[in-house]
Amino acid sequence: MASDEVEGTSPLPHADEHITLIGLGAIGVSFLALHLTYSSATVSVYDPRPDLEEHIQAVLPLYLPSSVDVASLISVGRLNLCASLEEACLAATIVQEQGPENVGFKQKTWSEVIRYVAPTCHLWSSTSGIPASKQLEHLSTTDDKHLEYPPTTDDIQASSARQRLLIVHPFNPPHIMPLLELVPSPHTTPAEVSFAKSYFTALRSGHRPITIHRESAGFVANRLSFILFREACHLVNEGVASAEEIDEVVRASLGPRWAMAGPFKMYGFGGGNKGLRGFLDNIGESIGEVWRDAGTITMDDDAWKDKVVEQTTQAYGLPSAEDIRVRDGGLRAVVKAQEEQERVARHGGGQGGQ
Amino acid sequence: MASDEVEGTSPLPHADEHITLIGLGAIGVSFLALHLTYSSATVSVYDPRPDLEEHIQAVLPLYLPSSVDVASLISVGRLNLCASLEEACLAATIVQEQGPENVGFKQKTWSEVIRYVAPTCHLWSSTSGIPASKQLEHLSTTDDKHLEYPPTTDDIQASSARQRLLIVHPFNPPHIMPLLELVPSPHTTPAEVSFAKSYFTALRSGHRPITIHRESAGFVANRLSFILFREACHLVNEGVASAEEIDEVVRASLGPRWAMAGPFKMYGFGGGNKGLRGFLDNIGESIGEVWRDAGTITMDDDAWKDKVVEQTTQAYGLPSAEDIRVRDGGLRAVVKAQEEQERVARHGGGQGGQ
Ligand SMILES: NC(=O)c1ccc[n+]([C@@H]2O[C@H](COP(=O)([O-])OP(=O)(O)OC[C@H]3O[C@@H](n4cnc5c(N)ncnc54)[C@H](O)[C@@H]3O)[C@@H](O)[C@H]2O)c1
Ligand SMILES: NC(=O)c1ccc[n+]([C@@H]2O[C@H](COP(=O)([O-])OP(=O)(O)OC[C@H]3O[C@@H](n4cnc5c(N)ncnc54)[C@H](O)[C@@H]3O)[C@@H](O)[C@H]2O)c1
Repeated sequence: MASDEVEGTSPLPHADEHITLIGLGAIGVSFLALHLTYSSATVSVYDPRPDLEEHIQAVLPLYLPSSVDVASLISVGRLNLCASLEEACLAATIVQEQGPENVGFKQKTWSEVIRYVAPTCHLWSSTSGIPASKQLEHLSTTDDKHLEYPPTTDDIQASSARQRLLIVHPFNPPHIMPLLELVPSPHTTPAEVSFAKSYFTALRSGHRPITIHRESAGFVANRLSFILFREACHLVNEGVASAEEIDEVVRASLGPRWAMAGPFKMYGFGGGNKGLRGFLDNIGESIGEVWRDAGTITMDDDAWKDKVVEQTTQAYGLPSAEDIRVRDGGLRAVVKAQEEQERVARHGGGQGGQ
Repeated sequence: MASDEVEGTSPLPHADEHITLIGLGAIGVSFLALHLTYSSATVSVYDPRPDLEEHIQAVLPLYLPSSVDVASLISVGRLNLCASLEEACLAATIVQEQGPENVGFKQKTWSEVIRYVAPTCHLWSSTSGIPASKQLEHLSTTDDKHLEYPPTTDDIQASSARQRLLIVHPFNPPHIMPLLELVPSPHTTPAEVSFAKSYFTALRSGHRPITIHRESAGFVANRLSFILFREACHLVNEGVASAEEIDEVVRASLGPRWAMAGPFKMYGFGGGNKGLRGFLDNIGESIGEVWRDAGTITMDDDAWKDKVVEQTTQAYGLPSAEDIRVRDGGLRAVVKAQEEQERVARHGGGQGGQ
């Protein structure tokens, strides 16, 4: 994950930050590993699951460098397992939430958090789909530009929270996948977006925070993924190819291609010396034909679901721990190939320059 | 591109094949390199461009291993530059076409080819979008199951050609990208599909031929790509993110993910021990929301085109030879990471066992 610059010469960043992690499931433990490995921030965690300590002891070491020991992180006070949300929030400069994906949980959590933390605390949610504006919609004011005079303490708190909350949407598993979609609400201040961006950039973990300008269902990555998935399900449903064949097609073509360059850059290449305009002029008709012919299955229909579930289960069985391990090793290798590609692009691959 | 088995112990395959390549543009020269490097077939090429020889001398060496010399391939007769289509077809056992992408060209070419080649010759088209049934639609019979009696020579030739033509659709650049979509028409015999599959598998170049069961606009890979691209253009048009930001999102998330496992396998992981069914149950509602909200831009509209072209050109300029070189190096690295992942999955990464 690290860049090609000299490492180990400067201390890890963020010694003054105190991060509160709420929810230590798949995403939470992975973020925990990221913060512990690449920053020197203190981390307090809260999750009401009764097996929290065993869970962290079991999973966290798989994500940490082998030189780092969980027990000693706890004994030196870099990692605190807390019995209540209030305790976890005590010294927080950043609260990062990855609890259950439902509006009720998110709203209730923020109502409590903003009572416990300082009014400057950064508020981040890992949600895959609940925009920041929705997560604070329940608070007393709905428009912080038109506070009643004199404002109540609740009003001030709500308005301030709305300015500080943004989505920091990771891609699973966050300790490996470089993407972080930063999605502010219309109320979030630009300074909060900048802070989140600089936090992750300073980690030098290879993470790539990208700011999304407007809230939209699925943000960007999941949105594109779900839309490709719809067509893939349609093709299975129509018998054009099986689920496994479609997976093989994607793995042998679009995956490697988009790991190297996104759709705009890649199709810009496709237009030769006329760039993307040339591509659209040459191939536009074929693209239009596909768009007109695209599948329109819906989630209300069960027939296609049965087909794709059956074919997928048949092809792969249920995922094993070993499957996940192989996947993660592969993901690391691709991310490394990307970093090498960037290095070559910057330095001209031994031909000097830059 | 090579597998992990011991190499160099067996001679290169296909010594008895004689391949005729029609059209030596981007795809043609890349396929030429593939055949010359990984098979011992003889290759004859035909392209009316006046600079054919210079073009091949300039581009082919970039794709060949440095030990292979174009002039000596020509002098030993493994590579023949032909002055006419007829001459190129003389000894053909396989004709592979990658000329201009228009129906008129494809139909005219096959009309000629089937007069020049033996009735057993395999016929492959690299087209991105013109199905095999369309490429031979103009020939005298339309249904080879109902030949008039006695059939004419033309009827017999047409019927036989329809049984032998299939699409072998590569992904650019074919000498690197593993995908080959084999798309038979309803007339193509299963034996022809098997032959194409075994041809590419025997190369041991890492290529992965995948049979598509039914002709459809864009086959599978381009179809999925065009549909994701539509949504990407919609998001640019709506100002959710810029073309460059969307490229970065895809490169940091979906690209690496899909390089490691296609959408069905990956979403099967997402459902934990309930597999893809669990995933659909948990996330189905969010997916459905994105599907309902998907963009519906069309190719008739120019406003979004101007936006995406401007942003793409602004971000990247026009592609340079160096850009292509960096892309190709990166693609090779990702394909290598895939092969390593497969090796680990097969052999358990040093833990022994299949
Ligand atoms: N899994 C993914 O691929 C993925 C990717 C990106 C974002 N996300 C988002 O991250 C969040 C968590 O997802 P996950 O996959 O880690 O889920 P998970 O079910 O693995 O983890 C959720 C955790 O929240 C805990 N929890 C329950 N009630 C709580 C409470 N009151 N306070 C604190 N913690 C509580 C649970 O005990 C559990 O450990 C969701 O919002 C999800 O949309 C998930
Ligand atoms: N470029 C891609 O990304 C890509 C990918 C997959 C498939 N394809 C398909 O491959 C085919 C070729 O595409 P390309 O990108 O190589 O195009 P190209 O324009 O680079 O090459 C086409 C070649 O055909 C030659 N040609 C013209 N008239 C001819 C004739 N009468 N006989 C023989 N050759 C003739 C041209 O001189 C040129 O060299 C098309 O059908 C295309 O759809 C292209």
